[in-house]
Order: sequence, then structure tokens, then C-alpha cells
Amino acid sequence: MPDKKFLIDLEPIGRRIEVQAGASLLEAAQQAGVDLVAACGGMGICGTCRVRPVRGEFNPLTPGEEEQLDAAQLASGSRLACQAVPRSDARVEIPPESLPAPQKMQIDGRQAVVALQPAVRAVDLALEPPELHDLRSDLSRVQDALLPELQGAPLQGDLAALEQLSMELRQNQWNVRLALKDSRLVGTFARGTPLLGLAVDLGSTKLAVYVVNLESGATLAQSGVMNPQISYGEDVVNRIAFANRGEGNRRMLQERVMEVLNGTAAGLCARADADPDQIVEAVVVGNTAMHHFFTHLPVVQLGAAPYVAAVSQPLEVRAAELGLKAAPGAQVYLPANIAGYVGGDHTAALLATRSFPGQRRVLVDIGTNTEISLVSGDELYSCSTASGPAFEGAHIHDGMRAAPGAIERVRLQRDGVAQVWTIGGMAPVGICGSGILQAVAELRSAGVIDHRGTLQKGAPGVRSTDGKAEFLLVAAAQTGHGRDVVVTRRDVNEIQLAKGAIRAGIEIMLQKGGITAADVDEWVIAGAFGTYLDLGSAVQVGMFPDVPLNRFHQVGNAAGMGAKQMLLSLAERREATRLAGRAHYVELTVEPGFTDEFMKDMYL
Amino acid sequence: MPDKKFLIDLEPIGRRIEVQAGASLLEAAQQAGVDLVAACGGMGICGTCRVRPVRGEFNPLTPGEEEQLDAAQLASGSRLACQAVPRSDARVEIPPESLPAPQKMQIDGRQAVVALQPAVRAVDLALEPPELHDLRSDLSRVQDALLPELQGAPLQGDLAALEQLSMELRQNQWNVRLALKDSRLVGTFARGTPLLGLAVDLGSTKLAVYVVNLESGATLAQSGVMNPQISYGEDVVNRIAFANRGEGNRRMLQERVMEVLNGTAAGLCARADADPDQIVEAVVVGNTAMHHFFTHLPVVQLGAAPYVAAVSQPLEVRAAELGLKAAPGAQVYLPANIAGYVGGDHTAALLATRSFPGQRRVLVDIGTNTEISLVSGDELYSCSTASGPAFEGAHIHDGMRAAPGAIERVRLQRDGVAQVWTIGGMAPVGICGSGILQAVAELRSAGVIDHRGTLQKGAPGVRSTDGKAEFLLVAAAQTGHGRDVVVTRRDVNEIQLAKGAIRAGIEIMLQKGGITAADVDEWVIAGAFGTYLDLGSAVQVGMFPDVPLNRFHQVGNAAGMGAKQMLLSLAERREATRLAGRAHYVELTVEPGFTDEFMKDMYL
Repeated sequence: MPDKKFLIDLEPIGRRIEVQAGASLLEAAQQAGVDLVAACGGMGICGTCRVRPVRGEFNPLTPGEEEQLDAAQLASGSRLACQAVPRSDARVEIPPESLPAPQKMQIDGRQAVVALQPAVRAVDLALEPPELHDLRSDLSRVQDALLPELQGAPLQGDLAALEQLSMELRQNQWNVRLALKDSRLVGTFARGTPLLGLAVDLGSTKLAVYVVNLESGATLAQSGVMNPQISYGEDVVNRIAFANRGEGNRRMLQERVMEVLNGTAAGLCARADADPDQIVEAVVVGNTAMHHFFTHLPVVQLGAAPYVAAVSQPLEVRAAELGLKAAPGAQVYLPANIAGYVGGDHTAALLATRSFPGQRRVLVDIGTNTEISLVSGDELYSCSTASGPAFEGAHIHDGMRAAPGAIERVRLQRDGVAQVWTIGGMAPVGICGSGILQAVAELRSAGVIDHRGTLQKGAPGVRSTDGKAEFLLVAAAQTGHGRDVVVTRRDVNEIQLAKGAIRAGIEIMLQKGGITAADVDEWVIAGAFGTYLDLGSAVQVGMFPDVPLNRFHQVGNAAGMGAKQMLLSLAERREATRLAGRAHYVELTVEPGFTDEFMKDMYL
Repeated sequence: MPDKKFLIDLEPIGRRIEVQAGASLLEAAQQAGVDLVAACGGMGICGTCRVRPVRGEFNPLTPGEEEQLDAAQLASGSRLACQAVPRSDARVEIPPESLPAPQKMQIDGRQAVVALQPAVRAVDLALEPPELHDLRSDLSRVQDALLPELQGAPLQGDLAALEQLSMELRQNQWNVRLALKDSRLVGTFARGTPLLGLAVDLGSTKLAVYVVNLESGATLAQSGVMNPQISYGEDVVNRIAFANRGEGNRRMLQERVMEVLNGTAAGLCARADADPDQIVEAVVVGNTAMHHFFTHLPVVQLGAAPYVAAVSQPLEVRAAELGLKAAPGAQVYLPANIAGYVGGDHTAALLATRSFPGQRRVLVDIGTNTEISLVSGDELYSCSTASGPAFEGAHIHDGMRAAPGAIERVRLQRDGVAQVWTIGGMAPVGICGSGILQAVAELRSAGVIDHRGTLQKGAPGVRSTDGKAEFLLVAAAQTGHGRDVVVTRRDVNEIQLAKGAIRAGIEIMLQKGGITAADVDEWVIAGAFGTYLDLGSAVQVGMFPDVPLNRFHQVGNAAGMGAKQMLLSLAERREATRLAGRAHYVELTVEPGFTDEFMKDMYL
């Protein structure tokens, strides 16, 4: 029955979707634009896309499901969306944890002041209309009026911009404002229309979007939204695997993110009482994989050693080629990528956090991959280290994103009982990155775990479940869902792996620069998790070296700030290109000392 | 019933289409991509879109139909597709004359030899693949290898070209042929792949398409196809009106022609054992309206005085922006338009037919609008004259296009009986442009019509039908459809209007140049009709001045030849731009002597 289709109702979101016979629920949901968490990208090995069929027939449980689902889940009839194949119309319940949750978004950052020098400028014109004795074409008429402005260079423009020109000339009785980029026509407007810019930090998890007035430099509106690509793989490695399974997949990753970006930009423009048409230039920063997804570039070579970028150069791309809604001749600037796993977002962060020459500085941008740079004199070393998704709450027994109800602060009292604080002050339902980091620090400090991360039997709060040691963080009676929230041995190990990877990266950077941690003047910690983490805990678990805490600066979304700076100033773009060009990329996997360092840095 | 749809079977073409309730058959057919002749663009005033409902219910006859359809047609149940609105599923017969017929296509021309200097060149590269100690991005690797070729300029490229680059590098084990236009990447291929160019003459009635090998200059394949825009209006004036009735209409005109062009180019490439992907550059010429339709430019201003072009400059446009299938970075070159009704096709014809300096030359490109240029010394005058569609067989009682069965030659015998020759040697069914021109010349020569075009009662072959005089050209017994083929007083008048308009344009051009017809060294007659017309007849009816016939040259599709020359040589493009820049456009409608001249030139 190759052409047979089934109707599936998805609850509680109330979406009805069509499934081709033989397709999995996950594929069908993705095609219908319903976001499901699918950390492994649909390979059936992560267990995050759990759903519960309520009605209808499905294929039998697969071995992968029997492995991933626990007894209670199996008893309740749960399935993995990537494994469940409907054989009739059906109704399926999606638990909240399988939908990308609304999340605490860090989109602000320390904003440097830059001298305004935007790429696009406004020129107002008042023209005589054509008549029988002046039959110049529209473009010739405009070009003649622009002779002084363009110093004789011919006015260039994409067809869409020329089409708009002819229409707006007549619409506005030959009184118009032109947006020009060098001698290229970007857009035509009624006189006095403000020209806007769009800055975007394209994170693997979230997009930070800013609408800026290019004449004043003011940020008119900003917003953070989830990256819809999460449905196709929680981290870039899984998304690359998904993309490489078919040309259509790669296209879908691009289209989904563009759809969300266009929607967000339109909303921000509306808040600024403007139209997306007024966006005459955009700057988009992201890691190399996000950059390639966004620009349709192939990612096969990012999925296998030696992990090279298709393009490392700064790119200037037509918004229309990408599907970004903006003025017809608008372009998107994407700064240089440094390597396959150190992207233009890191370039932007380096730009936004740069300080005066001679200052020695380490920049750490923490995510699933953590990018680290050391700036020391004229030297600039960069690397990427696989810190994993533990700080996003993934791979943690009771982990969750930094959403309402997530434990973000933990203090161990003398009696061994933990006191916890949650986002939004709600009853706890899980633990997010900053919470689990602090929990591990507190447990280590109280001697509940040893330097290898082993939970000490008999210590207060430690118990054994199914023969495995775990620490009871919040008892069922106090939680929002009536189940215990615990820290397991495995959770501690995940944190050891994550912090060990970051620390080892830092140490290799210091070695390259021939300096010690104490020689570094400023430790810049960027990114959402970096903003919320407790520095004391981070130093205590050994994620960061033990230096005075006042040398650390949590700067928030430095990449987003860098994007805004490049939107406002061509000089900033040139500086960003210089920084990326100066960076010596260090591939940690082939660095001789890295493995030993990493093993050592896993200790608590 | 706003959402109700009906199914309509169109015969004899065997297409089933869907019609939204309330829509006319013409709209539905157009949306379904079925070409119907609709000379007036669907306004119900030309009667060319006649169809015969066989089954089903329709709206009552409209006043327009009662006016346009004769008694026999009304009796047979004929309707106009633009007026007939189905009210149920139905079956409708389309008579052959309402379908754009296969036509005699003139696509060859006198081809000048040009020194090869194409815009796009091939560069073969053999690269080392990336490895852990050489992590340059793909683009950097290629750029480094191109340093000598590009003299240090950075390699530019659209995203689609960069995407293809990364893929083809790996596909071909790092041995590739790049197509470069200056420092822009046009496409990436296996080494040795031939690079192709596409030349197109975009006529209102037909497209002439040529696939050329850019390295040898050889034309590998060529073809003529009907312009599908005919369904939306037979001439550009009607198509402009159609386009201005809605943004969707304008888009449809562009998409339909692009669809046919892509299909034709793919077929030609297949004949040349190549892929459209190998097309690295195209040159497209057309009149200003066709140029604007093709490039999405607005045509509102071409539909009303003073008829100015949106763009007169030469354009270099990305094929992808137009929807033309070609190499990812391929561009389309469109030469300069001279005025709103003298387009880039005339520029191309001027280029293709240029001769040595000092030669005085008149170029006449006959169509619904006839463009005329006079080149005399350094002076170049151009005009456009509304010669109407009579030479295409339209507005002629038994007129038809130059399709099989059309009378193309007529000789009046002494007994007043006409001898006729048809295209394909078939039984005559109608008369095409060259036939009607010769018929009028013969009738005038035999005194059957006088100098005002009046048919002389009592002359052999002249009879009166419904009180109107007409000349019996072929009696029903000899025709293919069993009806008489006649020449009416009105037919003669149409030819008088057409030839008068052309001659008046020629005379004004001669006046501007301050010379007489006898001073002109060469009369160049271009275009399909210009190729088939009988020069003696044309001089006899006064369409052309009475100069020795050996000064006339029928050059065929000069515009297409010019397009090919610009495809093969950048020098030819520069020359075309110079020619267009030198042209003094003369607007005949405001030229003082034009009306008198025209009245005088209508005489036979």
C-alpha cells in the first residue's frame, strides 16, 4: 500500500497530521512542522522522542524501544516517535518533555559602543516624471540623479530591486528614498522611511534576533526563540547526520530555521512600527555547522575527520537567495569561520569582547561544543572541545533545559539536606545545567562524592536504587510531578566529562601561549549557560582554574553583540576578519598532550 | 458556492482541467497551462478564443459573444472561452484555429564570424585533499590554487555555486573544471566538461533558441518554439494590459515563457549530449515588453504614453533569479533597449547586420510592431511603427499563421483566376502574411483593386457577399475545409494600414538622415515575415521604396544571430551597447510630418 496515508491527531497540541504508510511518527511530525525533541536525530538511540499512542494500530515494539524505555513507560504503552510506524489512523499524546520547552533565553550582552558606519546608506531623491520629450528609462533617470552620489559609477541592482524601483517611483510621485550599498540599489521607499538592520545569533538551541535602526544605532526590538532544528537532532553532530541522510533533510533544516527567523523578524518589526521590507542589511553569526545549514552549504565534510569547512571566508549573500524576507536587494553578512568547529559566532564573540592591546584574555563560550580562545599579545589561539549537552540538562537523570521549574541553584545544608531554587520559583520538576554543576560542587565539598566522582555509601542523602548509588536532591512530596529528583553517579560522570573537556581545552591554550592561568588578565565567559553558572562552583569542580573570581566576566550573548557591531560598522567587519585571520586553530584531537590532560581534568 | 470546482475535458487535446466556480474557461485553461489564442488578452472583444461546449451547463451568452460570433457559430453552440463560465462538469471542443498552431519558424540568419571572447572561461584544477595538517576550507583551497589565474583577487560566488563546488570537489576526487566569469565562480564540473552558452531571441510569437559550444563557437543545436504568452494576448499591447490586471498575471507571463525556454533548452542540450547544468552563460534578446516580462520588470509604464522602459541599460542577471536552469552561477545578459518600443532585439539585429563604416543602411524588422533604423555615417535613427498583426495572418478574413495549409504565394492568371501555393503543399485552408501581401499586389497590378484599395465591381473573381465586395481566391471545392478562401475589402485595408505604417516610418527615418531612398546602399529586411515576403510585391504595394531589388537583403533572424554574437564575444556586447547608445530614438506619434506621410503611404 505505497500510497496509503493515515491521519494522526497529536495531543495536547491539537495538530492533525498525515502519515505516509511506512513512515515513522517522527518523520511525519517533522514534515508537518511539529517540533519534537530528537536528540539523536531519529536513530532510535537516545529515547528523547517519547510519545504515547492513545488510539490506533502501530508496528510492534522495536529492540531499540525495549532498550530505551523503562518498565513503567513500556507498561503505559509509550513508544519512541522515531520507531513507531502507524498502521491506521491514530491519536498520539506528546509528553511535555518531548516538546522543545519554552526556555530561559540569554540574548542580552555587554554592548560595546561603535562609531556608526553601516554598509547601507539612505539617499533621498526628487525627480521629474518622464514626458514625451524626456523618454529616459526609469533606471537612467535615477542614475543621472545619482551621478554626484555615485561619482559616475553605474547604479547596479538585482532585478527585484529594479522592479521595486519602477513601482515605488510612481507610487511616491517620483519622490523616493533609496537604500544604497556602494553603487548597488538595495531598496526604494517613501522619503524619510527609516532603514533597519537585522542581527542574528544563530545558536544550536536558540536564535537571538535584534532589529536595529541603522541611522541611530538603536536596538528597536529583540527576541530569543527556540531553534526549530532541535526536532532534527539536539546537537550539531546529530543534525549533520540528519542532513547527510538526504538532500531534502538539508533543505528542511534551512527552511525551518528561515521560517522561524522570518516570523520573529516580522514580529520585531511590527513592535518597532516597521515592515520587514525596511530591513536593508543583516548580519548572521553561528557555529560553522549552523552557518552551513543556513547557507545551504554541504556539511558532509563537517561530519567526518578532518572536519573542514566548505567556506571559511566572510560571506555576503543575497537575502533573497536564502529566503530571508527583507528589502529586495538586501544582503546578509556572515563573518569568517575559524575552523570546522569554531565558527563565525566565536569570531563575533572575540570581536565583542576584545580589549586593549597587551591585555591577556581567555574567552570561553560554553555549549555542546565549547569554543575557547586565548589572546596573548599578538597571538590568538582557538580550539573547540566536545563538552556535551550536560549543561543543557541532557543526559542527566532528572535533567531539563533552563525552563520554569528547573532547579538552578543548590545548597547542601549541614544535615546533608539540599536546599534548591528553581526558575520561576515553581515546585521543582528537574535540574538544569547551572543546578547540576552547583549540586556536584556542593556534594564534593561536603565529601558526599570523592575526587573520582564516586558517591560515598552511607553519606547523608545517598541511597541505592536498583543497586546503583544516587543522591536524593528533592523528595517526591516536594516536587511538581510527585517523583524524586536525584543526582546519580552517572550524572556526576557527565559533569566530570563536560568540565574536564573545557578545562583541558583551556590548559592546551595556555600551553600554546606559553603562559599560566595566573598570567591571564581577564577570563571572559560567554553564552547563556556561562551567564547563569555559579563561578565559585565552576572553579571548585575544576572547570576553570583557581584564579581570583574578579578576573572572570560573564558577558552574556557576546556573539549577538558582535553581530550587532558588524551590522552598525564596516570597520567592525574588517576587525572581525582580522581576528579570524589571526586565529591559530588548534585541533585538540591530534594535540599530543590533550588526552592525558583531559583524564587528569576529570577529577573533582 | 465559492469553493466549488468543476472538471472540464478539453478536446481534441484530451486535457482534463479544474475550474473554480465563477471562473471563465479561458482563465481555467491558462491556469492549467493550456494555450488558447486570445488576441485581446481575454477582454471579449476579439473573438479568437472560440470553443464549442459539447456537454455541461454554462452561463447564458454574453452581449460580447453575440457581437463576435456569427450566425453559424451561434447555431453550432460556439462560445468565447473568455466569456463562457461553466456551471457543471463539462466537455469542450477547441477548434484548431483557437490553438496556437505549429508554425513555420525562421530561426536561421546570416551569421557573422566573430573572434571568440566569451564571458566565461574554463580552468582545470588538480588539488590535494584536506588532511589533519591542512584544514583549509574548500573555498580557501581553491582560492589558493587560483592565485595566479585571478592575480590575487578573491574568488566570488553565489551560494549555489559554492555549494556545488564543495560537492563536485569530492565527487571528482579534487580534479575539477571551474567555469569562471572574471573572478566569479559560475560552475564546477568534472575535468574536460564542455562549457555551453544559450542564445535566445524572445519574439512575441516565437522563441528562437540556440545552444552553443563556448570554446569552439559552434552552434550545437537550435530550435524554434511558440511563445506560450500568446494565450494571454496575441500582441504585446494586449499582454501588457493582461499583465497590468494583476501581479499574478505578470508572474504567470514570466513563468510560462521560462517553462517553455527551460524545456526547449533541455531538449537541445540532450541533442548535444549535454546537460543544462553546462550552460554557463546566456544572452536573451527581445522587444522591450518581452524583455520586461522576462525580467519581472513592471510594464505599467509601457502601456500608456509616454511609453518609457523601466530599464534601458544592458543587464546582467543571475539565471537563478529568473528561474532559468543553468550552472548555479550562470548569468543572463540582456543588451540595451533603445526605447519603450525599440528593444534589445533590435539592438542585436543592428549588431548582426552592421557593415563597414560609410555604408548607408536601413534595417527593417517586421512584426506587429516594426522597428526601423537608418544608419548613415555616424548617425543612427530608430523608430517603431504599429504595423499590426496582419502579416501574422490576424485580422484577415481567412488569415492564419504560416502553418501547413497556409497560402504563401499567389499569382493572378490572365483569366482572373488565382493560382496559389501553400506551405507543405497541402490543400489551402487560409492565407498567411506573405500570401495576402502578394495577393494584394497581384490584385492591384491586374486592376482588380484601385489605388484606394477598393475592389472593382465586375472585375473577374469579385463578388458581393452580404452586400460586401470580396475576391474569391480559392473556391470551396479546392480548399482543405470545404469553405471558400476570399480576400475582402477589409483585408486589403488591413494590408494598406500595415504597409503604410512601415513605409511612413521609413520615410521619416530618411528625412531625419537628410537622404533619399536612392542614397541607401543596403536595405536589410529582418524577421520571419521579412524572410518569406516577396520583395517585388512589397515594392509594388509601396511598403518599400522603389529601388533596385538587389539592394534588399533578407537576413532572417538577425536578432537571434546578434544574440549568438554577444554570447561568443564580449567585444560584440560592447559594440551593441555603443550602437544602442548612438541611436536617436524618434517617437513617430509626436513627429509633425508622420500623420500626413502615413495617410499618403496607405495608397496602393
